[in-house]
Amino acid sequence: MTGAETVRAAVLTGVGSVEVQERPRPVPRPDEVLVEVLSVGVCGSDTHYYEHGRIGSFVVEDQLVLGHEASGRIVQVGADVDPARVGERVSIEPGVPCRTCEQCLAGRYNLCPRMVFHATPPVDGSLVEIVSHHHAFVHPVPDGVDDDAAALAEPLSVGIWACRKGGVRLGSRVLVTGAGPVGILSAYAARAAGAAWVAVADVNPHRLAVVERMGFVALDVSAAPLDEALGGAREPEVLLECSGHEGSTVAGLHALARAGRAVLVGMGSDEMPLPVAALQERELVLTGVFRYANTWPTALGLLAHDDGSLAALVTGHFDLEHTADALTAAGRDPRAMKSMIHPGR
Amino acid sequence: MTGAETVRAAVLTGVGSVEVQERPRPVPRPDEVLVEVLSVGVCGSDTHYYEHGRIGSFVVEDQLVLGHEASGRIVQVGADVDPARVGERVSIEPGVPCRTCEQCLAGRYNLCPRMVFHATPPVDGSLVEIVSHHHAFVHPVPDGVDDDAAALAEPLSVGIWACRKGGVRLGSRVLVTGAGPVGILSAYAARAAGAAWVAVADVNPHRLAVVERMGFVALDVSAAPLDEALGGAREPEVLLECSGHEGSTVAGLHALARAGRAVLVGMGSDEMPLPVAALQERELVLTGVFRYANTWPTALGLLAHDDGSLAALVTGHFDLEHTADALTAAGRDPRAMKSMIHPGR
Amino acid sequence: MTGAETVRAAVLTGVGSVEVQERPRPVPRPDEVLVEVLSVGVCGSDTHYYEHGRIGSFVVEDQLVLGHEASGRIVQVGADVDPARVGERVSIEPGVPCRTCEQCLAGRYNLCPRMVFHATPPVDGSLVEIVSHHHAFVHPVPDGVDDDAAALAEPLSVGIWACRKGGVRLGSRVLVTGAGPVGILSAYAARAAGAAWVAVADVNPHRLAVVERMGFVALDVSAAPLDEALGGAREPEVLLECSGHEGSTVAGLHALARAGRAVLVGMGSDEMPLPVAALQERELVLTGVFRYANTWPTALGLLAHDDGSLAALVTGHFDLEHTADALTAAGRDPRAMKSMIHPGR
Amino acid sequence: MTGAETVRAAVLTGVGSVEVQERPRPVPRPDEVLVEVLSVGVCGSDTHYYEHGRIGSFVVEDQLVLGHEASGRIVQVGADVDPARVGERVSIEPGVPCRTCEQCLAGRYNLCPRMVFHATPPVDGSLVEIVSHHHAFVHPVPDGVDDDAAALAEPLSVGIWACRKGGVRLGSRVLVTGAGPVGILSAYAARAAGAAWVAVADVNPHRLAVVERMGFVALDVSAAPLDEALGGAREPEVLLECSGHEGSTVAGLHALARAGRAVLVGMGSDEMPLPVAALQERELVLTGVFRYANTWPTALGLLAHDDGSLAALVTGHFDLEHTADALTAAGRDPRAMKSMIHPGR
Repeated sequence: MTGAETVRAAVLTGVGSVEVQERPRPVPRPDEVLVEVLSVGVCGSDTHYYEHGRIGSFVVEDQLVLGHEASGRIVQVGADVDPARVGERVSIEPGVPCRTCEQCLAGRYNLCPRMVFHATPPVDGSLVEIVSHHHAFVHPVPDGVDDDAAALAEPLSVGIWACRKGGVRLGSRVLVTGAGPVGILSAYAARAAGAAWVAVADVNPHRLAVVERMGFVALDVSAAPLDEALGGAREPEVLLECSGHEGSTVAGLHALARAGRAVLVGMGSDEMPLPVAALQERELVLTGVFRYANTWPTALGLLAHDDGSLAALVTGHFDLEHTADALTAAGRDPRAMKSMIHPGR
Repeated sequence: MTGAETVRAAVLTGVGSVEVQERPRPVPRPDEVLVEVLSVGVCGSDTHYYEHGRIGSFVVEDQLVLGHEASGRIVQVGADVDPARVGERVSIEPGVPCRTCEQCLAGRYNLCPRMVFHATPPVDGSLVEIVSHHHAFVHPVPDGVDDDAAALAEPLSVGIWACRKGGVRLGSRVLVTGAGPVGILSAYAARAAGAAWVAVADVNPHRLAVVERMGFVALDVSAAPLDEALGGAREPEVLLECSGHEGSTVAGLHALARAGRAVLVGMGSDEMPLPVAALQERELVLTGVFRYANTWPTALGLLAHDDGSLAALVTGHFDLEHTADALTAAGRDPRAMKSMIHPGR
Repeated sequence: MTGAETVRAAVLTGVGSVEVQERPRPVPRPDEVLVEVLSVGVCGSDTHYYEHGRIGSFVVEDQLVLGHEASGRIVQVGADVDPARVGERVSIEPGVPCRTCEQCLAGRYNLCPRMVFHATPPVDGSLVEIVSHHHAFVHPVPDGVDDDAAALAEPLSVGIWACRKGGVRLGSRVLVTGAGPVGILSAYAARAAGAAWVAVADVNPHRLAVVERMGFVALDVSAAPLDEALGGAREPEVLLECSGHEGSTVAGLHALARAGRAVLVGMGSDEMPLPVAALQERELVLTGVFRYANTWPTALGLLAHDDGSLAALVTGHFDLEHTADALTAAGRDPRAMKSMIHPGR
Repeated sequence: MTGAETVRAAVLTGVGSVEVQERPRPVPRPDEVLVEVLSVGVCGSDTHYYEHGRIGSFVVEDQLVLGHEASGRIVQVGADVDPARVGERVSIEPGVPCRTCEQCLAGRYNLCPRMVFHATPPVDGSLVEIVSHHHAFVHPVPDGVDDDAAALAEPLSVGIWACRKGGVRLGSRVLVTGAGPVGILSAYAARAAGAAWVAVADVNPHRLAVVERMGFVALDVSAAPLDEALGGAREPEVLLECSGHEGSTVAGLHALARAGRAVLVGMGSDEMPLPVAALQERELVLTGVFRYANTWPTALGLLAHDDGSLAALVTGHFDLEHTADALTAAGRDPRAMKSMIHPGR
């Protein structure tokens, strides 16, 4: 297959419309590699583009290949890349920054204003048989991490980045609001970073069951508000807000200990009424995450030591032709967590 | 006077009512010193208690001695304090923390839940001829810093603390919103910390004139919104919000560079609609300040090297009998910045 | 026993001489509690005082009660302490700082120049049936942590503090030199803090076997130098030097990755020739630890989740009369790790 | 001149031998600009290569163009650079990192193992009429900063970087050892960063006079050791060691306050006996600087606000033909501080 002149891609052609198209096989630039894509996780943002055609100021003007949580295998390298990398199993970090601006040189490349990021209009994503990508952002996958796990390195990177921004460290008490894949993976990263207490709040009983199975404290906020669900637990020091809901954000901020840190991970409305007096009196620190930087080695290291618990997050497998089904799985089934699409198989 | 059995104090006896009362001369505990109070700056919070009887959850239930920006001279020491300190000119750090709780032992004593703080109900303040205070929070004043300047160490500490929380450092670009005393002193601290560009926004032309005289960039936001007033200036990296106004806060956040830091210094409404999507996309960090910790030596050091520009912030002098006039000066005269009351003279 | 008028203590009366003496039962000050001491771990510093009568500038002038790794049970409280604490199982943080100096107020209470610390001349330690101690430094022990484990909170705190100073975080690669109790516990803390790779180097095969049993990478430096023992491993980012040996320190520094951090935990000679050019070219950060601050809750949290592996570190149990045997166990038996003395049983 | 086919360069052809050679005029790569070089400061490392042919492991194997403190004017741009930059006055950051390695992506580009740095064998430097350099490392010079000052941005960057590594901030007490250009500029950066007290120690009376004229505390360590010269001054919190001497380093470390930070800036012997016990007991932090990262905008901002005091550091002007005289000026005259060579005039 790797010698074909065209490759098949799942293309968003309009709101609610995805079709598989033949595209020219990409030619790697000197600093790029070609990756045969084997697993692509579906993210809520993919579904959002599918259903609404836009996310905030990012609008799908024309056609867009979706997908940005990808793993695969290197099948060709550009002129400046070590040919020994052909055959390497890899996880793709989907954004390539400019590497010369003030943000990049300061190590905050996720904030590069010239970032080129998969499946963010007008840049095509990785739901395609073969994709070309800068070699430094295509990371080798340790033995024992399968293709689906390697694709999970992307959402796990979000969780790792949230933990870094939240200052999660040995002994931290961490509250996660929202038990979707990013919430679960943020809790997972927090525990790996030594958090002494990790609780995850949600209203969906299926997701709360996953929370419990993974060994976190499950807080059911469908019946009681967060402060009641917390009961007599000591105040958390870190809030990782992964639901995007205003109510969770406000309740989570009120729950924090003095000098606590809150990280807005989930995306919701552009504006929210926030308890600024409480933030001042307790000197809370509030920030948000925008993608991640320098997380892949850590993510792949965690995946290499996973005891299998993360595999349970993958609740559906699809081929490229069934991309629309994958995109809408979460809406159809409250048990669905993460759909995997397999373009190259 | 220092031998008298009673001391005179300015006491808030009800909304809009301050009277001078005789109180028993305090007796220092072993770890305390008695300070003859010579200058007390009026803070907006004093005025707020005078006009409303409360600030948020802090309610004046009974009577309250106002004042928490005080300087003076040690006239007596407790049993465990070095008697050589008698006669020392001092600036009073008005809060005494418990020093055994988790916050105190971590160096965040300003967040101590058992803090005893001047003029915060039910703790009396320093508008009194002689006050007793823990020796470690009564700081020696360098030669050349007069009593009024020594009293300014308190609001200057707010500015220093805001700069620490905002990460102001050599080369920073700093935007201050609100040109009241705390705004001016925050700008002053930012410049002292090496900020390369410091601008202060306000609507009051008298205050903007002070901003200009002190060498900061004055941004008049009475006619144009902040983004227009900023014109082509490079995006600031730090926002020190000293007005407490929602509009300034939101406009200030939107003005920040990626990875910028915003510090809520001014107190306003308990809740504000904030642009969380912008905060996430730019990974802004938002926090607030609650008093200060470990700032007095730095504040007094700055005051010792002041070129006289801070003296212009003191726009009125009052004796204890005219405390009400001092409390209401800012409301009567748009030129008023900081009133000084002199209990012990 | 708790009502007796005297208590028995193990007293160092001269070099190589420890005797059990009757001492007056202590009377708690208002902010203190009396603790019936149940387990006291022997530290190398106890042995050093026993064998040499001094450690650097700390000299045993007269008699000294040894011991500073203690756990027990509260049997009486001072006037200002909650009486409900009587009966509480506790771990003793052996140093009580002044809480008013510059270091204390900044949260670095371990650097307090007026620190009062168990078994540091002239302050007596905890090898006594009942000891009086400031309530804030007597920490409640979670259920499931036995007395010996509660005593291990002290050396584990050293490891936690070393990890904090070394910036160990999720994904770090950590090299520990020296597989004594502190080295092992430092490695344990590093793994708990999310380190992706933790190796421990030593020359003692019995200790290297413990390293392996606990799941760390064991580096035998008896036959090959450290760089060879490391083989092709990626450069560590953090060095926790727990041997006090010059050779290990220098080799460890040379092994570090650029921008690596080295923490001197073990005590050796006062002065060492260090590779400053390498430190400059790689911008290594070198620091040392002096005791710890704010570590007990984290230490006790780790002990509560231990899978039993730490119990293997305790290689001998002694009563007060056999204190000398406990102090010399490590010198007699290369298999010995940590001796526990039980004064109150 | 800018159209000539060859350019003149000062070339080190052997130990103690510099000659002016004609070299082909460089052709900019797409991401480069051509700079007509107008001022080049002489650094001790240039002199060291001239006198010894090597610095540590960096050996001049063949010929080497010296110089890495350069300013000038853009005369041509590569294909990917904005042509509007032609004519821009610039200061050259002499190192160009790879921008894809782990160190670069983390924002520590000065530690890039693939760094290409002026006048570091085998990379030629800037003592040439026209040099080609990556556009992102050629910084626009503000009006009012002349060519010599723009060249000082390089050693000033060393001082700024040292202050960042040393954590110099508002209120810091800073001790600089060594009053050469880098020592003076480190002190200058420390004061600009808000240091409350800045002292500089040296044995050279001419240099100590410069220290005094610039308003720093001058410590004469020719007659008395450092601790005596410090007299009753409060312990400094930061040591910026700019002499490279062992004695200064050790004495400076002993002088530091608890939790102090020491930065090794000056280069001396590869190995030094250091007081590790003192470092441990006081938890001092010791590190070194290797070049700098992200300092140019700050340096140029400082130079734009300089009151003229820095001009006095330039003690000699030379044309390309007198490069050898410039390189040896400091050895001939104890009053010499910084020689400037002007290739393009």
